[in-house]
Amino acid sequence: MLTSREHKSEDTTFRIGSTVVGRDFTIIAGPCAVEDEMTFLDTARLVKSEGAHILRGHVYKPRTSPYDFQGLKDDGFQFIMAAKENLNMPIVMEVTAIEYVPIVAEYADLVQVGARNMQHFELLKAVGRIRRPVLLKRHPAATLYEFLMAAEYILQEGNENVILCERGIRSFSDFSRYTLDLTIVPALKERTHLPVFVDPSHASGRSAYVPPLAKAARACGADGLILEVHPSPENARCDKDQALTPEIFKKLMHELTS
Amino acid sequence: MLTSREHKSEDTTFRIGSTVVGRDFTIIAGPCAVEDEMTFLDTARLVKSEGAHILRGHVYKPRTSPYDFQGLKDDGFQFIMAAKENLNMPIVMEVTAIEYVPIVAEYADLVQVGARNMQHFELLKAVGRIRRPVLLKRHPAATLYEFLMAAEYILQEGNENVILCERGIRSFSDFSRYTLDLTIVPALKERTHLPVFVDPSHASGRSAYVPPLAKAARACGADGLILEVHPSPENARCDKDQALTPEIFKKLMHELTS
Amino acid sequence: MLTSREHKSEDTTFRIGSTVVGRDFTIIAGPCAVEDEMTFLDTARLVKSEGAHILRGHVYKPRTSPYDFQGLKDDGFQFIMAAKENLNMPIVMEVTAIEYVPIVAEYADLVQVGARNMQHFELLKAVGRIRRPVLLKRHPAATLYEFLMAAEYILQEGNENVILCERGIRSFSDFSRYTLDLTIVPALKERTHLPVFVDPSHASGRSAYVPPLAKAARACGADGLILEVHPSPENARCDKDQALTPEIFKKLMHELTS
Amino acid sequence: MLTSREHKSEDTTFRIGSTVVGRDFTIIAGPCAVEDEMTFLDTARLVKSEGAHILRGHVYKPRTSPYDFQGLKDDGFQFIMAAKENLNMPIVMEVTAIEYVPIVAEYADLVQVGARNMQHFELLKAVGRIRRPVLLKRHPAATLYEFLMAAEYILQEGNENVILCERGIRSFSDFSRYTLDLTIVPALKERTHLPVFVDPSHASGRSAYVPPLAKAARACGADGLILEVHPSPENARCDKDQALTPEIFKKLMHELTS
Repeated sequence: MLTSREHKSEDTTFRIGSTVVGRDFTIIAGPCAVEDEMTFLDTARLVKSEGAHILRGHVYKPRTSPYDFQGLKDDGFQFIMAAKENLNMPIVMEVTAIEYVPIVAEYADLVQVGARNMQHFELLKAVGRIRRPVLLKRHPAATLYEFLMAAEYILQEGNENVILCERGIRSFSDFSRYTLDLTIVPALKERTHLPVFVDPSHASGRSAYVPPLAKAARACGADGLILEVHPSPENARCDKDQALTPEIFKKLMHELTS
Repeated sequence: MLTSREHKSEDTTFRIGSTVVGRDFTIIAGPCAVEDEMTFLDTARLVKSEGAHILRGHVYKPRTSPYDFQGLKDDGFQFIMAAKENLNMPIVMEVTAIEYVPIVAEYADLVQVGARNMQHFELLKAVGRIRRPVLLKRHPAATLYEFLMAAEYILQEGNENVILCERGIRSFSDFSRYTLDLTIVPALKERTHLPVFVDPSHASGRSAYVPPLAKAARACGADGLILEVHPSPENARCDKDQALTPEIFKKLMHELTS
Repeated sequence: MLTSREHKSEDTTFRIGSTVVGRDFTIIAGPCAVEDEMTFLDTARLVKSEGAHILRGHVYKPRTSPYDFQGLKDDGFQFIMAAKENLNMPIVMEVTAIEYVPIVAEYADLVQVGARNMQHFELLKAVGRIRRPVLLKRHPAATLYEFLMAAEYILQEGNENVILCERGIRSFSDFSRYTLDLTIVPALKERTHLPVFVDPSHASGRSAYVPPLAKAARACGADGLILEVHPSPENARCDKDQALTPEIFKKLMHELTS
Repeated sequence: MLTSREHKSEDTTFRIGSTVVGRDFTIIAGPCAVEDEMTFLDTARLVKSEGAHILRGHVYKPRTSPYDFQGLKDDGFQFIMAAKENLNMPIVMEVTAIEYVPIVAEYADLVQVGARNMQHFELLKAVGRIRRPVLLKRHPAATLYEFLMAAEYILQEGNENVILCERGIRSFSDFSRYTLDLTIVPALKERTHLPVFVDPSHASGRSAYVPPLAKAARACGADGLILEVHPSPENARCDKDQALTPEIFKKLMHELTS
């Protein structure tokens, strides 16, 4: 397997902006979705000033209900450009269909395949043929084997810069949206050379649990984090319960880097 | 919601070949994948002679590993044509990417969106715009709400002929591939006017459990079944452990219709 | 293993009152708990007249919260006696601690070890030493192997009359209390000679789903059912949402026996 | 609720030997089971010299199969005494039945109720009436509510010195025995004043994952750890795959305390 330590023993590393993924502890932060220019740029400035390396800039949003906010789509790209020009910050953006791969690969520095598309094999092959690094999120019901095989589809097409991201599994929990499965961090590091990230925001669904889980992820060997941050979470158009306030984000970044 | 009983109280029914889905108890049967002409036509003749209404004719196969058999793809359409011409039997075929929607809608009488694509929202919208009925399989980690919302994406685009299909949820089982969740049959029938099918072959992963589960599905109100049948399961190119032999299929069909 | 088909190939059968468990399709019915004499005797008469073979007569109730109704305990035995004398109906009663084994074995014709005590190994050994048949419920997180090994503890002590009862596994369901795992019925019948029952009331937690699941359980080969019935479910002191009304119970019994 | 922060806002703390549980970060370590005098004393000396506060000294072992090693039972108490006299180290011991409560409370400094007995309510009440602190392990299928209500049974009887211990939930994992649910640590700390421990050995079932998970547990706010350590894990009579070697334990203790 191309993803295995047997195939390649040393850790895969690659540069995105100022961070070397797989070597530095990398922080991706930003809003759940791009909503409007001012909110987006405010959040971007905040997360940059606190030391985040990559900005969340999602304009296509896969949503459970067709009646939920679906992202700004094409209207969001102008704000992405504004953030890149003003702040010189790399962007991660989700791609939800093969037809969007070219435009997302043009604007984004890191292309995300979301959890619900983890076994959308045609999309995996499509992002395997681009020159951008890919962030592949684990489906909440995926086994480790299925997760690695999904990455294998990408590597097989020639793209070796893939980040694996744990974001919580489906369980019977009565206190969190998903159950963050941190055991997969050392289990993946044992089997694969690819970098492993953790998203405690989507996993827990509650901002109060994000700082302790972020620190736990780092302690057990994760290579990076994805954190949802919003200037005023109560006004966010999606996932308001899990976004960190600027104050809590600042405090967490201080704890993670000290 | 367009899928709800509040929106439409009477059961949705529609004709496919000789069966009226939602009114008659409908049997879909056939091999996991189209493999070669002779095996496919043999299986087709068998399932037709035993009373199945729709033939499985999958040429695109989503597979966990890129090293597994991926289906015959375009080479399979000739065998589909041969089966339709010789046997006059409707075909269900899975569509795994938006780009395949036109050709699948041309050859198939029923277009399947597989479990792993249940929240591939762009594909749901694409099959919502065709004139063919759609078979939507439940993702093994999908809640009832997520399942209905996935169907809602299809109905919203104008296609009201959607079959919902339970095929097992992910659990800790040490004796079956997935856990068949038959409780969702009455739970769905209570909330939605759409027909509900059950696939005991993929759920259990073992042919010995398929007949009792098929009978159980019927007893709890399912509108139809999907059954994997193969002339010699030990030679099947995928899912050999769950395909029924011709003898067991014949016996089961007799029990289901008596 | 004493529980295995290798050890004993023919089905285990034993008589309780008018039914031969493992040979006849056996119905256990009655209230969640014994509440008061009149309600209990009314329910007993009802379930007997509709053809149930064994009456639920639980006086010790294991409850999640210490603030919930814990059963009548010793005060309930007089009502059990009244039901046995007036109606000549066998009783199933749960035992929740080793110290209650003697009194429960004296009053009950079938001794229940509840799901939460499935791996209370000292209790298993204690009921293995009595002369009464035992109804062992599957823990909602037990694998098939763990379930059979729990029964093995009982058989090892000399008691071979054990009924295995599926009552739903813990899952992520958003529409039922537990997920009824009917696949375990054929899976157990394949491996063990012990009779297998199903409890659709506790599994689904909703009376509307009980009749379809009861019929499904029978269709897939279960040897019997446990059904919660109450003269006026809205007044029940526990599990009011899952108890069948007399009318629905009557209709279900008619469907099961026709 | 007696377990709630509303009832008591400040953290519960109590002394066991040299540690104040709920205030100090407490390490419990030792073998899965007491096997023989030399192995037990060797392990005891090792874990003490590396800074562990409490010694695992289990003589009653609940085991899935009746054919597995069931613990030394009464024969083990002499080794417990030897360890206490020679090393002056507090002991944690599991109690598996009400009848053993008095003797376990006499020999042990901390009385463990194992995961499988978490809802053995009569046992909970029995340990609620003793003067020893209780370590209550979460059942692998227990919700947070069920876990707290189990502790409530103990507090209601008058024993307020209860430690809650997460040890992994049942899931579909293909790489670990259970899925360690660290999110419950901050979720419990938010709701209850009781100390919260984590057992990464039983959760993961693989010694290689124990050090990263132990550090993660500490980072997310746990009050203590339970670690399985064995002088030569390959010879352990139970759980050999998850016991730390002396070398790895030494290294981990150094990392946890630096």
